[in-house]
Amino acid sequence: MAFTSVQKIRFDDVDGAGIVYYPQFFRLCHAAFEDFFDTAAPISYPELIRDRRLGFPTVAIESRFDAPLEYGDVAVVELVIERVGRSSVDFKYTVRRRRDGVHSFQAKITTVLMDLDTRKPVPLDAELRMILEQSLAGSPHSPSDG
Amino acid sequence: MAFTSVQKIRFDDVDGAGIVYYPQFFRLCHAAFEDFFDTAAPISYPELIRDRRLGFPTVAIESRFDAPLEYGDVAVVELVIERVGRSSVDFKYTVRRRRDGVHSFQAKITTVLMDLDTRKPVPLDAELRMILEQSLAGSPHSPSDG
Amino acid sequence: MAFTSVQKIRFDDVDGAGIVYYPQFFRLCHAAFEDFFDTAAPISYPELIRDRRLGFPTVAIESRFDAPLEYGDVAVVELVIERVGRSSVDFKYTVRRRRDGVHSFQAKITTVLMDLDTRKPVPLDAELRMILEQSLAGSPHSPSDG
Amino acid sequence: MAFTSVQKIRFDDVDGAGIVYYPQFFRLCHAAFEDFFDTAAPISYPELIRDRRLGFPTVAIESRFDAPLEYGDVAVVELVIERVGRSSVDFKYTVRRRRDGVHSFQAKITTVLMDLDTRKPVPLDAELRMILEQSLAGSPHSPSDG
Repeated sequence: MAFTSVQKIRFDDVDGAGIVYYPQFFRLCHAAFEDFFDTAAPISYPELIRDRRLGFPTVAIESRFDAPLEYGDVAVVELVIERVGRSSVDFKYTVRRRRDGVHSFQAKITTVLMDLDTRKPVPLDAELRMILEQSLAGSPHSPSDG
Repeated sequence: MAFTSVQKIRFDDVDGAGIVYYPQFFRLCHAAFEDFFDTAAPISYPELIRDRRLGFPTVAIESRFDAPLEYGDVAVVELVIERVGRSSVDFKYTVRRRRDGVHSFQAKITTVLMDLDTRKPVPLDAELRMILEQSLAGSPHSPSDG
Repeated sequence: MAFTSVQKIRFDDVDGAGIVYYPQFFRLCHAAFEDFFDTAAPISYPELIRDRRLGFPTVAIESRFDAPLEYGDVAVVELVIERVGRSSVDFKYTVRRRRDGVHSFQAKITTVLMDLDTRKPVPLDAELRMILEQSLAGSPHSPSDG
Repeated sequence: MAFTSVQKIRFDDVDGAGIVYYPQFFRLCHAAFEDFFDTAAPISYPELIRDRRLGFPTVAIESRFDAPLEYGDVAVVELVIERVGRSSVDFKYTVRRRRDGVHSFQAKITTVLMDLDTRKPVPLDAELRMILEQSLAGSPHSPSDG
């Protein structure tokens, strides 16, 4: 049930120690999230923001960095939806290096559907819930619990 | 008449060749532009955007890169206003390395005052014109020509 | 015992939803980490990397995002050292908005002293240990436990 | 003879005015430059840097911004090689918006082949010269002039 996005490490993704700057891993995750929307949903993430004034800001992160990426690497980013709550959605991301398959990074990122004008959480509507639940880890048999 | 902003090169400003990534020089310039507004104007640049829905997007650049910056360097960014037109303003930026005073970069950046909602150029009002002309290279005696 | 670094939110720190892009919070933390070194240590972080080929890559993050930052905000970043182990150091960061003092973000970031050439962890030497332990939360009375 | 690279505008490419931050256009150009190397050359740009310690730092830019890009846009970046000198190479980049074909940006970017250790320009070797000249605007009939 995982969605995969493949992304080249670019010339400016590295830091002063010569490896990918650790906050860039979250940029890789966000790009995978955007690609997931482009692929799985009838509305893109930019459209959700512009037309419906909704977004999924991040409210919590737990992550682990296991092996560095370097300039020239290609990142294989995997996105799995772990939990769909009333307003919140937990995404699990893993990043592997394409050259050797080594596991580089993983994160659990909790987001909340927010009205961008009021800045308050709003419940997922039926369409967003369906899109997300279809991609739940273990679906179609695992119910949402949140 | 120059305005100076001093900025540390940060851990993620470098590129895969180990020197400051060239587009970051424009980030240094923009930070100096923001600092200029914070210092010289009664309204900050964020307030100009949010409250008056005006901005100064860049329409042209001519620039030269003379010596690299490295991680650990401190950039001394100098901003001079070269020309104030009806809607357009030309800024000249120079960047020197603090450690040795070496000239690293210079750019002429042309901006236009734009209404952010209509996306059309608008004439500078009297207040913005005054702020900018006071900082004109060679002022108070050099009239604007644009 | 906290170290504080004050940083302006810049024009490019925001995202497509108009608030500070969440990975930028880690950039704010890293800048505070660099400023801490510049202030507290006899060697800057760039010198540690260049001259001694040592660095503190991040190996784990736990973080929470409580209130957004916007363009025009000033971030007050507080760094506290929570634990100094044999090779690992846990930093706790909190970010508040200067305009209203609202707590925006907190993170526990675990780093490991690494030899940048071998890419292996190395024990903290006496000097680095002393610098870090002097800034331990609760020091001078709290011993390190790691 | 143009090389084309298609790139999604990402969530963090915008600025506080809600359009793509102008230095990001140079990031788009550099990504196209990297993609050109991946496609046209027997060695990738990361390999050129790592294995041969050579790079093409930018020494001059002339550019014009004609229409903004927004979050959700897809950038069509076209790279043409305009001149191959002894050490220097001039690239011309144009960026169009995919949704409407509107011309957004163009730049002439002059680079110099540099030894990354000595930081001195070095002449293009026969292989690099051949790769670049094959992609010269107007080639195969236009000789290099530099």
